[in-house]
Amino acid sequence: MTLARLNALTASLLNSKLDAVILNPGPTLTYLTGVQFHLMERPVVLFIVPGKDPVLVLPELELPKVDLFPYKVQAIAYGENPSEWDDAFRKAAQALGVDGKRIGVEPRQLRLHEFNYAKSAAPESEFPDASQVLSCLRLKKDKAEVDAMRRAVKIAQDALEAVIPLIKIGMTERELAGELMIQLFKHGSDAELPFSPIVSGGPNAANPHASPSERKLQVGDLLVVDWGAAYGGYISDLTRTFAVGEVDAECQKIHKIVQEANAAGRAVGKAGIPCAAVDIAARTVIEKSGYGKYFNHRTGHGIGMEAHEDPYMRGDNLQLLEVGMAYTVEPGIYLTERNGVRVEDNMLITESGAESLSDMPREIRVVG
Amino acid sequence: MTLARLNALTASLLNSKLDAVILNPGPTLTYLTGVQFHLMERPVVLFIVPGKDPVLVLPELELPKVDLFPYKVQAIAYGENPSEWDDAFRKAAQALGVDGKRIGVEPRQLRLHEFNYAKSAAPESEFPDASQVLSCLRLKKDKAEVDAMRRAVKIAQDALEAVIPLIKIGMTERELAGELMIQLFKHGSDAELPFSPIVSGGPNAANPHASPSERKLQVGDLLVVDWGAAYGGYISDLTRTFAVGEVDAECQKIHKIVQEANAAGRAVGKAGIPCAAVDIAARTVIEKSGYGKYFNHRTGHGIGMEAHEDPYMRGDNLQLLEVGMAYTVEPGIYLTERNGVRVEDNMLITESGAESLSDMPREIRVVG
Repeated sequence: MTLARLNALTASLLNSKLDAVILNPGPTLTYLTGVQFHLMERPVVLFIVPGKDPVLVLPELELPKVDLFPYKVQAIAYGENPSEWDDAFRKAAQALGVDGKRIGVEPRQLRLHEFNYAKSAAPESEFPDASQVLSCLRLKKDKAEVDAMRRAVKIAQDALEAVIPLIKIGMTERELAGELMIQLFKHGSDAELPFSPIVSGGPNAANPHASPSERKLQVGDLLVVDWGAAYGGYISDLTRTFAVGEVDAECQKIHKIVQEANAAGRAVGKAGIPCAAVDIAARTVIEKSGYGKYFNHRTGHGIGMEAHEDPYMRGDNLQLLEVGMAYTVEPGIYLTERNGVRVEDNMLITESGAESLSDMPREIRVVG
Repeated sequence: MTLARLNALTASLLNSKLDAVILNPGPTLTYLTGVQFHLMERPVVLFIVPGKDPVLVLPELELPKVDLFPYKVQAIAYGENPSEWDDAFRKAAQALGVDGKRIGVEPRQLRLHEFNYAKSAAPESEFPDASQVLSCLRLKKDKAEVDAMRRAVKIAQDALEAVIPLIKIGMTERELAGELMIQLFKHGSDAELPFSPIVSGGPNAANPHASPSERKLQVGDLLVVDWGAAYGGYISDLTRTFAVGEVDAECQKIHKIVQEANAAGRAVGKAGIPCAAVDIAARTVIEKSGYGKYFNHRTGHGIGMEAHEDPYMRGDNLQLLEVGMAYTVEPGIYLTERNGVRVEDNMLITESGAESLSDMPREIRVVG
């Protein structure tokens, strides 16, 4: 399977103006090889040139991982002294004859660290942005990928359901986030969560990217839980908003509006429409309610191996949805220093429309 | 405290040939601001110029975090459409007048993503490597940092002790790793672990960077557990090796050698000696035993906010240890396709020598 993916990349490269691609540890490298490396001070870089065996520069102590590759790669290993590392990269560039060629990079993944080694090994090369070519490979999910995502959704939903009975008034956001992580792993999440859960109550819920704090849950809080699991390297990314005890009429109202916006965003998805239509469908509901200025982010993003990837559900994104694409629908209303709501589902474009992989109740539920 | 750190950076910049520094989300940014951002597709960059208020470029939806800064920063926020982002960076560069200046970067943290925005906002600038200046700031841990590291060690040790009685022959590495993560969070680890635990038995233990697999623990395995916790943003990074049931004489022997090497590496540490001396002390024990070629990595690395940071315990590193530095001592012996051992502790240089923050029994313990 990974060989087919490598071949697909090779074909795209031949149709592009790129002679090669370099990858550092991250989702694209794992997608193309099935092997996981970690970002660390020791640079790991895979050089891919159509028609040649890929070359992998890596530290000697990572050599056992070369056996895990599903196709032939030439490994160039270096020792612990950083003064040796430049030489390993030079050998890689020479083995593939890439100096002076156009070597594509992934700017959102590649650090200056790896880039500087590659550049000094191929000083005459250009390093154009290959994000488009690479993200295209991963855009449409195959059956195995969708199965893993379904499992990641199920793990996440089951974990949160297990936590809901434990939620008590006076509990801190951090305590609740800790319980949720424990349940994510008990339910079988991969070791690397897609992101640390957001658990934010009351005024903190008005910050879409809040970190769980020592603030205690209070009656009247809206409680936003934005969480996900990973399974086989694929992720889920969901949000539900709860009422801590009795919440006021405006909280009830904004939850209802966001739930309707979420439903509208989910309903509109199908192959052939632009991503913008998803954003507009959800946003229109909130704008018509008069809360438009309190929805200050796009409606969603692609999901798969990463929690944020192509395609993005933005009002200006004319990219067309295609069968196999997966993305979030996550409208919100954020009343600064008061309360916030978000309701987020994971969608898959199918032959017949858009399927929500997540089905946990979206209605406001009272906890505590 | 973070203001004092910013002032220390400003002083170092004035003594260096750098006019400015740019930081993206990561430990140095958190160290200098106390605020956490995440790496994502939306670039977040802090520009620091001595004598001026720092400028922070960030997405609008992250604006609530600006209130968390302990000193004045000028926030330049952008919307969801990436076509606006270049302009935000240009405004930042203009506000600080950094174009044409020497802007220091952290290559191991900064992605081409943020770098490209900064470079296009300051096209006449050079971007020299500022790693040295920045890592110096974080090298010597103060009391609060050491207290957090002690707590991270205690959480890790208590979590593994809780898991040991659960280890059973026939359990998979992944199952054991899952139990360990659950216990890490039950014992109070921060949400973001320093790294996913390594749990590797038998032949997998011969791979120093193995990922937990579906392999079942078998009698005769050495079982390497390399794990850590985080507390208040500071980490621990420990390793212990167990015997699954009865192991053969060579396994017993290599464990004993590694334990002695670990003891020698721990004993030699003190202010004023080079990092190389720590490596040599541990390595000499293993070399004398005849297993030198099976110890294929450096003896240790610095620890603090990152699981790998300066200073590195390598035989060629003449950097001198100083009071407040923290590092690992983690010799190992790896018998390819058979078994492996590593024993790792976390050390702190004190006025009187080197203190091991970790004290969990290092002797081989039988599990299963």
